[in-house]
Amino acid sequence: MKELLSLFEDYLLNNLPNSKTFHPYFEAALADMLKAGGKRFRPMLMLSVVKSNKGLLIRNSLPVALGLEFLHTYSLIHDDLPAMDNADLRRGFQTLHKKYDEVTAILVGDALNTQAFNLISNASLSNDIRIDLIKCLSSNGGIDGMIIGQAIDCYFENQKLELNQLEFLHIHKTAKLIAASLKMGAIISEYDLQTQEKLYNFGIDLGLLFQIQDDIIDETCSSLEAGKTTQNDSSKNSFVNLLGLDGAKKSADELALECINILETFDSNLKESLEELLLKYINRHK
Amino acid sequence: MKELLSLFEDYLLNNLPNSKTFHPYFEAALADMLKAGGKRFRPMLMLSVVKSNKGLLIRNSLPVALGLEFLHTYSLIHDDLPAMDNADLRRGFQTLHKKYDEVTAILVGDALNTQAFNLISNASLSNDIRIDLIKCLSSNGGIDGMIIGQAIDCYFENQKLELNQLEFLHIHKTAKLIAASLKMGAIISEYDLQTQEKLYNFGIDLGLLFQIQDDIIDETCSSLEAGKTTQNDSSKNSFVNLLGLDGAKKSADELALECINILETFDSNLKESLEELLLKYINRHK
Repeated sequence: MKELLSLFEDYLLNNLPNSKTFHPYFEAALADMLKAGGKRFRPMLMLSVVKSNKGLLIRNSLPVALGLEFLHTYSLIHDDLPAMDNADLRRGFQTLHKKYDEVTAILVGDALNTQAFNLISNASLSNDIRIDLIKCLSSNGGIDGMIIGQAIDCYFENQKLELNQLEFLHIHKTAKLIAASLKMGAIISEYDLQTQEKLYNFGIDLGLLFQIQDDIIDETCSSLEAGKTTQNDSSKNSFVNLLGLDGAKKSADELALECINILETFDSNLKESLEELLLKYINRHK
Repeated sequence: MKELLSLFEDYLLNNLPNSKTFHPYFEAALADMLKAGGKRFRPMLMLSVVKSNKGLLIRNSLPVALGLEFLHTYSLIHDDLPAMDNADLRRGFQTLHKKYDEVTAILVGDALNTQAFNLISNASLSNDIRIDLIKCLSSNGGIDGMIIGQAIDCYFENQKLELNQLEFLHIHKTAKLIAASLKMGAIISEYDLQTQEKLYNFGIDLGLLFQIQDDIIDETCSSLEAGKTTQNDSSKNSFVNLLGLDGAKKSADELALECINILETFDSNLKESLEELLLKYINRHK
């Protein structure tokens, strides 16, 4: 798994978006958040699935994995904007609108969104595969996925949602892109449609589990850290606020068990490859 | 040409992006700027080229034409944001951040950008063609095209550029998407690569001509309309400010003549189809 990650990191550093012009800092700004690190979770999900079947295609899949990281990174840059989270820091670095200006943050996000599709369209994979990948990413990363989730998250920031609405929010905002990452690996590996869907649905559970875990971890930290206001957290639409800490933990336990059970039902190569990546995450809330 | 336009308008109205959720207005916001009108210039350029050769493919090309309009519309929505032009009105309607809020304007723009590629990937055209279309749109509408043009335009708002820098700005900000529209028509029509490139280069000239014309029209209007401050205009990087009104008119005349000459060299079907759309624009600065 470490090998796969360093393969991806090397590829990323050698394929940062470039734009050599007389603009004094736009090219640097394009690369900043990509170089800032992060778990590279979506590319790794995709590459792990590719590794399980058509491992020889891993090198050809790197531009697609990078496209996933571009799309995810653009969403973070726009989420951090003053009109949304107004965040000063991301992954320990200044956010783009803080380091440069808001125009730059908006345009770098826009550029990475578009460039994700440019990367996939230029990958050395069959046209059939590239088209299916673009359908999958544009549907789950767009109106029917990440964007509507983010729109709902922002609009209902201070209004309490029902449980099914909160699940809808997080399935769209987070889980769909995670599910798409697994499915895109399956598309490249030419797994049958049934396996593609099974991986996608597994990704939805996984994404939801991660969100509940994040909410639990947020709550636990904020109660330990003296001096940190928890007011923002209590008005936030989180699973902990809706279900209580114990209720959220119970939900996470159930979902973690379900994820482990589903993992057991995959073919041995796929199971092995995903377990190596995922087991440490699935029980991290305990 | 009117038929082609009303075919496109009907298609647009029947294929507005939908997102039926419990968000009170996101779906309406997605459609507002698309319904607000405009010349539909980019889709019409593309469809005019398709009409000239493989006219039977016009219906199958409509999702691609709509994708072009989505990409262009997202760029207007983001250009109007408070951090950029801070515009209250667009095409006679309130801008999205005025009517709703800034979050909505950012996210609607993001959604239309991604959805452009979803539309193309789902069009009933061969996979080869769809991949070439996505390469063309993502390259000209992204880092190497529209985005870097916009970044330069914003950064150098109050600094005088050299003529070659001003041309670079407008070739990237405006002309490349116009050139891509023509080339995308040629890709669908399966014109040879030489014709594709010729149409693309013609589009660059055309885009530049339109920009110089816009600058001339802006200047003429502002000097006619009493009470309108021209201070903003004089600090703007425009061809009129750099070349003077007469100089700009001379450049536009030369470029218009060049465009007309190039039109003459296209095959008769292509020439006829483009002339019908373009002649009224080419000399509009006179």
